[in-house]
Amino acid sequence: MSADRVGEDALVRRIRALTASAGGETGVRVGIGDDCAVLEPEPGAALLATTDLFLEGVHFRRRWAQPADIGWKSLAVNLSDIAAMGGRPRWALVALACPEGTGAEEIEAFYEGALALARTHEVAIVGGDTSASPAGWLVNVTVLGQAVALRLRSTARPGDVVAVTGALGRAAGGLAMLEREGVPPAAAAAHLADLTTAHLRPRPRVAEGRWLTAAGGVTAMMDLSDGLGIDLPRLLDASRAGALVDVERLPVDDATRAVASALGADPLAWATGGGEDYELLLTCGRSAFEPLQRGLRDACGTGLTAIGEVTAGASAVRWSSGGRAVAVARGFEHFAGRSAAGGAGS
Amino acid sequence: MSADRVGEDALVRRIRALTASAGGETGVRVGIGDDCAVLEPEPGAALLATTDLFLEGVHFRRRWAQPADIGWKSLAVNLSDIAAMGGRPRWALVALACPEGTGAEEIEAFYEGALALARTHEVAIVGGDTSASPAGWLVNVTVLGQAVALRLRSTARPGDVVAVTGALGRAAGGLAMLEREGVPPAAAAAHLADLTTAHLRPRPRVAEGRWLTAAGGVTAMMDLSDGLGIDLPRLLDASRAGALVDVERLPVDDATRAVASALGADPLAWATGGGEDYELLLTCGRSAFEPLQRGLRDACGTGLTAIGEVTAGASAVRWSSGGRAVAVARGFEHFAGRSAAGGAGS
Repeated sequence: MSADRVGEDALVRRIRALTASAGGETGVRVGIGDDCAVLEPEPGAALLATTDLFLEGVHFRRRWAQPADIGWKSLAVNLSDIAAMGGRPRWALVALACPEGTGAEEIEAFYEGALALARTHEVAIVGGDTSASPAGWLVNVTVLGQAVALRLRSTARPGDVVAVTGALGRAAGGLAMLEREGVPPAAAAAHLADLTTAHLRPRPRVAEGRWLTAAGGVTAMMDLSDGLGIDLPRLLDASRAGALVDVERLPVDDATRAVASALGADPLAWATGGGEDYELLLTCGRSAFEPLQRGLRDACGTGLTAIGEVTAGASAVRWSSGGRAVAVARGFEHFAGRSAAGGAGS
Repeated sequence: MSADRVGEDALVRRIRALTASAGGETGVRVGIGDDCAVLEPEPGAALLATTDLFLEGVHFRRRWAQPADIGWKSLAVNLSDIAAMGGRPRWALVALACPEGTGAEEIEAFYEGALALARTHEVAIVGGDTSASPAGWLVNVTVLGQAVALRLRSTARPGDVVAVTGALGRAAGGLAMLEREGVPPAAAAAHLADLTTAHLRPRPRVAEGRWLTAAGGVTAMMDLSDGLGIDLPRLLDASRAGALVDVERLPVDDATRAVASALGADPLAWATGGGEDYELLLTCGRSAFEPLQRGLRDACGTGLTAIGEVTAGASAVRWSSGGRAVAVARGFEHFAGRSAAGGAGS
């Protein structure tokens, strides 16, 4: 999948080049290439727009994702993009295609799932589309938001601290449990609900993104959708910088370690390559880190962990463990075919 | 399909009821139920937002739709929704899922097709998503626009003239040619490119929508995506009115009549039930009609035809031909399964 990932980013660059020549660029502050597009309907305004496909057989399986889960997560991944820019999500458009025979109660459950999350963030579902589907549940959600200040991917500076919110690898641990046939090992069973919920119903870091942006000191930010092993290089590429990351410092919680141990999996591989944690990845000045860490804990109850530093030069990550260079798992494996999932920039 | 259409509108009403209770409605001037959502990022602003799925096997077939056609039309159907509100389209987000083995040149052709139309309307493609597909080409496009004045579906008044731009049934004639195996009859061959282009690359009436809205006198407006037989009742339902329509007055051009004749089809059934013409359906005061007709011809080179009048009372259409009541074909037949295509209101 790694080779296809390279192909995906190359494709996004090509799409970006094509669309940049389209003219009509007035009112575009940031186009393809960051978590959201930043538009300027009025001079000085910052309207954020992001859209994501969420497809059965690629992003989820009906065997373990209920309609309400699908509704929740299809909105959550977009709210996470708004969070990554430090914005306030306001409106959502929800397009849903269902296979023949889908009951009205399943469709309502889908919307109820989306609405449960929308209400939490005071987001209104203002439009959408419904269609027959040629294959399974197909969802596209677009979210619009607003920002006062903005944090982009492209503004990390050498010497900055690299940090992440919350914990990594939880969603991958949850997926491993969901994908596993049969009774979970006893040591994993205690954490089943915790980790599968992390996968099925991620909580986008909207409050955290807004607080971090308002607090000052954050130099660049994005959300972790495809995993640190893919997303950090993207941030560095946009910022034309490198990074040194100590994998021993990655925040992996006890539940994730216990489940990994019970399943014979590597929790660090989940943390770097699992994806779908929807935590925030950010860079900040050295002196800003501790106040940000303390402030975020006080304001949102969310941890912030320093995992490395930005370096000058090539946009590559040097991963280390106990001072020795290591290779890490690079990114989330989708279920179907050639995967280009993860975004042409918004 | 007609029975399912009723089901679709009922579903949209249910979704509308669900989402209306979501709270967070601040900044929503028009939610689900019109061609676009109308949002208010700043007091007094009118931001239009619309999203549409465009799916292989439901909305098009790869046998006759090339990637560039898919790109064009997936954007066109959204621009048409902006046109229906009298707005100016500004920004598009394009989400594309392709099956395994799709070449980069096909994906580029898709974007080139979308860009060819985007450039015409000075629309910037500012974001999107790319993904593997579980089945065929799956597209979702979201378009954002702006409006100074607005025309809604819900404001038709008894006594108003019912009118449509351009000609009806052309896209259905084109589809009949595309779907037909083998060599077209000689009498149809001369019109092949004209009508198939009408189906594959519809030209949304953006300039017309803006001109008509600015000119004044138009009381309600929407675009014809599913066909007059479905869309006019929707406008009337929103306006709590009825209408009397003379099918002899429906604008059906010579090419459409010639192809219908050659294929043994009924051109009126295409005009009322074919869908996908993306003409504008509007109502206006009696005295406003002739100035609007003349002005639209002068400004845009586009015809405007009076086809009936709005009546008080039940939101039903009485169709007549030469003074006698007739039944008409009701709506576009999609290719796959239970169709709910056409929109949950945006």
